Amino acid sequence: MYDCIIIGTGPAGLSAAINLKTYNKNFVWFGSGTLSDKVRKAEKIVNYPGFPEISGQGLFEKFKEHIEAAGIEITEKTVNNVMEAGGYYMVLADNELYEAKTIILAMGVMSAKVLEGEQEYLGRGVSYCATCDGMLYRGKKIAVICNSPKYEHEVEYLADLAAQVYYYPTFDSAVQRDNITISKDRPKIIQGDMQVRSLVLRSGETVEVDGVFCLRNAIAPSSLIPGIQLDHAHIAVDRSMATNLKGCFACGDCTGRPYQYTKAVGEGNIAAHSVISHLAEKE
Amino acid sequence: MYDCIIIGTGPAGLSAAINLKTYNKNFVWFGSGTLSDKVRKAEKIVNYPGFPEISGQGLFEKFKEHIEAAGIEITEKTVNNVMEAGGYYMVLADNELYEAKTIILAMGVMSAKVLEGEQEYLGRGVSYCATCDGMLYRGKKIAVICNSPKYEHEVEYLADLAAQVYYYPTFDSAVQRDNITISKDRPKIIQGDMQVRSLVLRSGETVEVDGVFCLRNAIAPSSLIPGIQLDHAHIAVDRSMATNLKGCFACGDCTGRPYQYTKAVGEGNIAAHSVISHLAEKE
Repeated sequence: MYDCIIIGTGPAGLSAAINLKTYNKNFVWFGSGTLSDKVRKAEKIVNYPGFPEISGQGLFEKFKEHIEAAGIEITEKTVNNVMEAGGYYMVLADNELYEAKTIILAMGVMSAKVLEGEQEYLGRGVSYCATCDGMLYRGKKIAVICNSPKYEHEVEYLADLAAQVYYYPTFDSAVQRDNITISKDRPKIIQGDMQVRSLVLRSGETVEVDGVFCLRNAIAPSSLIPGIQLDHAHIAVDRSMATNLKGCFACGDCTGRPYQYTKAVGEGNIAAHSVISHLAEKE
Repeated sequence: MYDCIIIGTGPAGLSAAINLKTYNKNFVWFGSGTLSDKVRKAEKIVNYPGFPEISGQGLFEKFKEHIEAAGIEITEKTVNNVMEAGGYYMVLADNELYEAKTIILAMGVMSAKVLEGEQEYLGRGVSYCATCDGMLYRGKKIAVICNSPKYEHEVEYLADLAAQVYYYPTFDSAVQRDNITISKDRPKIIQGDMQVRSLVLRSGETVEVDGVFCLRNAIAPSSLIPGIQLDHAHIAVDRSMATNLKGCFACGDCTGRPYQYTKAVGEGNIAAHSVISHLAEKE
């Protein structure tokens, strides 16, 4: 049982990880080894105190240096599900189970909008995880929505299983398979009865499918952790970064505006200190 | 009329100033040119993201560099009083009046305890400002409590006016005047009737005085801004860093634990963005 699981490798997760490490806590940090795409792609940052003017790439390198100096490891798995289990948490990451006393959510905000019908059909044809649910669609017809090239290996994995894949990447894809049809049209509505039956596109066209995989950088918080309280699209927290679930804290963009690196590192710091207090109370 | 007045030059005030400057706001930033003593004296900081390991002096130099690069000025005056004036604020700094639409309080936490009787006799013999109130004690007997050598010029100014100064510095003082009596005893209770009459020391000795000057790095928030809502010793704020007074925001150590640089810069960032939103609403 870990002391804590941190989800997300942006500035908020980074700040939380550094602080838990300083306090010698036993934690797993899930996310991308390339940290945050948002940070890396920023052209010029002038309001991160201590760096008068730095590029996103420059700040990324400083962050990387800090992680290495602190001896912290990133576990490059995608978290698909977090379950409150009465005093502790179970986390499913790429189909492997992890357990921890506390959780820090630092997964940023979803830039993609949730589709109409997506929440409704989650678990009934809508999936966020190819490795978890791919086998259910062996020999079937599926749609795959993808917003980052880093998930394309999952698209190929799905094409190995499914009879037909209708693929909707938000970028120029280089994937070539006989059973993959790439479309520039944008998905709009997921429809069905008890199960997903079709996907309606912006053009008005309707594609018949048995399932829809949404492979995105982030999962909507309410899909990731059942029962978490939201404040519009953000996770509701108090000033100690506590959510409504005991032992579960959130920080960074996922808790709301301003979407700023400095705000994110500040909240990551607070969340880590709240975890440390929470663990001390339980002992 | 300024857009904003920032009080305090620690990490929270710095972060707020950088952001207001980025948004081209017209503001005054009060505090010490040496920024925060707490930052400068830190031996080793390992949890400020981007600097794997840096000394307090090192981070101070980075902050200084940032201030210079951004073209921000520090106004080295001590703020004695902030008054809500119906939609805007009046700020008294070293006896000079400033007006602003919004306030950011970033004055840190008081390390010194408030004396028994201090709040009660504020304005009735207790003063925080030699230049403001010194003239009231011409030819009288006063006590001066001082916790930083940087206020010793005020002690000498008071000695020019008063008949007798009982002086209680918390450090080794080099001040030499015929009418200044330096004591290593510690003040404990301020007593009087309608006005201050005496100061009781820890040793049990009672010194008869007409006034008590408390020259400290920080003033308790409730003394600085009448009407501000506290949460124990800290300023009560919501997640946008808003206090109970409209247009008045607070950030950094003065809003509570954890007392951390990273938390402070994060809150300074949020406070600045809240000021920017507030100004936009008023326009």
